[in-house]
Amino acid sequence: MEQNNKLSSIGEFGLIEKFKKGILVAQRSVIVGIGDDAAVIKMPRGSKYQLFTTDMLVEGVHFDLSYTPPFQLGWKALSINISDIAAMGGIPTFALVSLGLKKDTSVKFVEDIYRGIKRVAKRFSVDIVGGDTVSSSYLTINISLLGEVERENLILRRGAKPGDSIFVTGTLGDSAVGLALLKRADHPLLTTQKTIRAHLTPLPRLKEARALAQTQKVSSMIDVSDGLASDLIRIAEASKVGVKVYADKIPLSFSSKKGSKLLKKEPLDFALYGGEDYELLFTIPKSQVDKLSSQFTKKVKTHLQIIGEITPPEEGYQLLNYKGRKIRLKAGGYNHFLYNKGEKLK
Amino acid sequence: MEQNNKLSSIGEFGLIEKFKKGILVAQRSVIVGIGDDAAVIKMPRGSKYQLFTTDMLVEGVHFDLSYTPPFQLGWKALSINISDIAAMGGIPTFALVSLGLKKDTSVKFVEDIYRGIKRVAKRFSVDIVGGDTVSSSYLTINISLLGEVERENLILRRGAKPGDSIFVTGTLGDSAVGLALLKRADHPLLTTQKTIRAHLTPLPRLKEARALAQTQKVSSMIDVSDGLASDLIRIAEASKVGVKVYADKIPLSFSSKKGSKLLKKEPLDFALYGGEDYELLFTIPKSQVDKLSSQFTKKVKTHLQIIGEITPPEEGYQLLNYKGRKIRLKAGGYNHFLYNKGEKLK
Repeated sequence: MEQNNKLSSIGEFGLIEKFKKGILVAQRSVIVGIGDDAAVIKMPRGSKYQLFTTDMLVEGVHFDLSYTPPFQLGWKALSINISDIAAMGGIPTFALVSLGLKKDTSVKFVEDIYRGIKRVAKRFSVDIVGGDTVSSSYLTINISLLGEVERENLILRRGAKPGDSIFVTGTLGDSAVGLALLKRADHPLLTTQKTIRAHLTPLPRLKEARALAQTQKVSSMIDVSDGLASDLIRIAEASKVGVKVYADKIPLSFSSKKGSKLLKKEPLDFALYGGEDYELLFTIPKSQVDKLSSQFTKKVKTHLQIIGEITPPEEGYQLLNYKGRKIRLKAGGYNHFLYNKGEKLK
Repeated sequence: MEQNNKLSSIGEFGLIEKFKKGILVAQRSVIVGIGDDAAVIKMPRGSKYQLFTTDMLVEGVHFDLSYTPPFQLGWKALSINISDIAAMGGIPTFALVSLGLKKDTSVKFVEDIYRGIKRVAKRFSVDIVGGDTVSSSYLTINISLLGEVERENLILRRGAKPGDSIFVTGTLGDSAVGLALLKRADHPLLTTQKTIRAHLTPLPRLKEARALAQTQKVSSMIDVSDGLASDLIRIAEASKVGVKVYADKIPLSFSSKKGSKLLKKEPLDFALYGGEDYELLFTIPKSQVDKLSSQFTKKVKTHLQIIGEITPPEEGYQLLNYKGRKIRLKAGGYNHFLYNKGEKLK
């Protein structure tokens, strides 16, 4: 019973659910509050919605300074917030940066964090308009990001319908493979470098997300931050549907396969449970797939891969062709209160 | 030289200055970026500005769980952000809450934090629209808050002019006295309870700030978060003026005097260097003082106290009648990288 009173027993998802209930969204124009990649707020007299998101990164939990240089850390901290805005179909606008810094931190180190933040800010036209700088025993970065989206282009998690095709951009699992290689500190193969980059300096799929949003045919979208399994189930839960995914369709990079071999693990497991890919996972009505694909590929070259389809809720979460078997897909992504990152891959 | 490369040598102010230089506010409608209580952003087609602020609270730095109950912690975390919005003349609207929680935290404890946040949110009509919950070795709370203000009611730090009168709401030093009493764990006198409350459950002066903003006569404003000395100098620096403050005019509560006596310290030092009062510190052209005071007191009962006046910049920062002497006012507030809170009072 005592065990049940600790956070480690309910995990982050349980926690969010618990507090969602008590949160008053009393008045005004909250279109979506807790429970999507970003909050959606109606603007007075505007034709756009405002988006609002935040992410906290803590040393020893989300990153380890022994293999995370400060420039890359700043880069990633802003990138992952932009990815949340992208997943709603929007564009990022203004950010605040809170830094909790250890007293013995060098000025150069902090400058490097900011250089990384500024590099990404410039690339995606985000203005850093303020923040807070405090002392802390562990390096902590919290970025809050505003964005905007035309009302008709907003994409939520909750619009997937049975029969929709499930798509993903790019390849999955690279970041988790990169992390595992960084931890082992033996990644001699040039061919695995893509995984290291994927982990340390991810780039949000903003251009892709905007191209998708502008087709107005995407029924649901999320960015892959906690692993394909967890994030797919988030879409399924929000949309009250089932999913059927073909393991052999999940896109894996050459670099991830090489790295996984080195690590003596399955690249597919990294894709399913690794997380931090920041690829877009989305659904489209089957009838629209051809039209959307041709509209999309006119604007963006990024590879889109169909990995499965949305099913009626009673069919549950199925993963087919997984080592020749059909298994039940489980939210096995990163649970902050149960695992240390990377340790849940058995 | 090595010493000069550490954060402890430049402090938070130095750090903010350092990064302000490199921050690109490239495009769009940033009226005020880094360097005021909140960022100010022009809205498309609106008659209002949007305000955007954030504050990070870290266990062991900003609070100690041995004397800070979780309800009070949540309360304070949102209150201090609302105080930043109030100091711009605005009203708060939407907030995101990031929590870094220790693994062995009880669910009840987290519920209590949220209860405190929600109590304040309800009182000031703020909607909690999302956040992030992660694991951390130290309890960390970061709240980001949006607000809005009619363009004509915006008050910045930088508008003070020589000859303006300097005002403050309420009394100063209570929170710092309360903290010192909490640390000693011997505060038997009922008369000191006001100081404990001031420290644990501060209330932002939102009603007062709005009444002041609506007079459109306030030339500069800030909330007292780092101590009167530091925050007054912030106004002076932003406005490029000097200040002359009369120590015997600084409002001190009976409770703070009682507590200080118990602590064998000067209540005035708590007021000057203690911080966390979240009172409003503002300036008004002398010719407007009578009119404003009568307009204000029609709406709000809170006591306003003139504590000095703005001078030409060459006159510097003067504190008169301080133990019978005139001294130079120095930014002696809380420096996160130099002190532990409460320890700088000699």
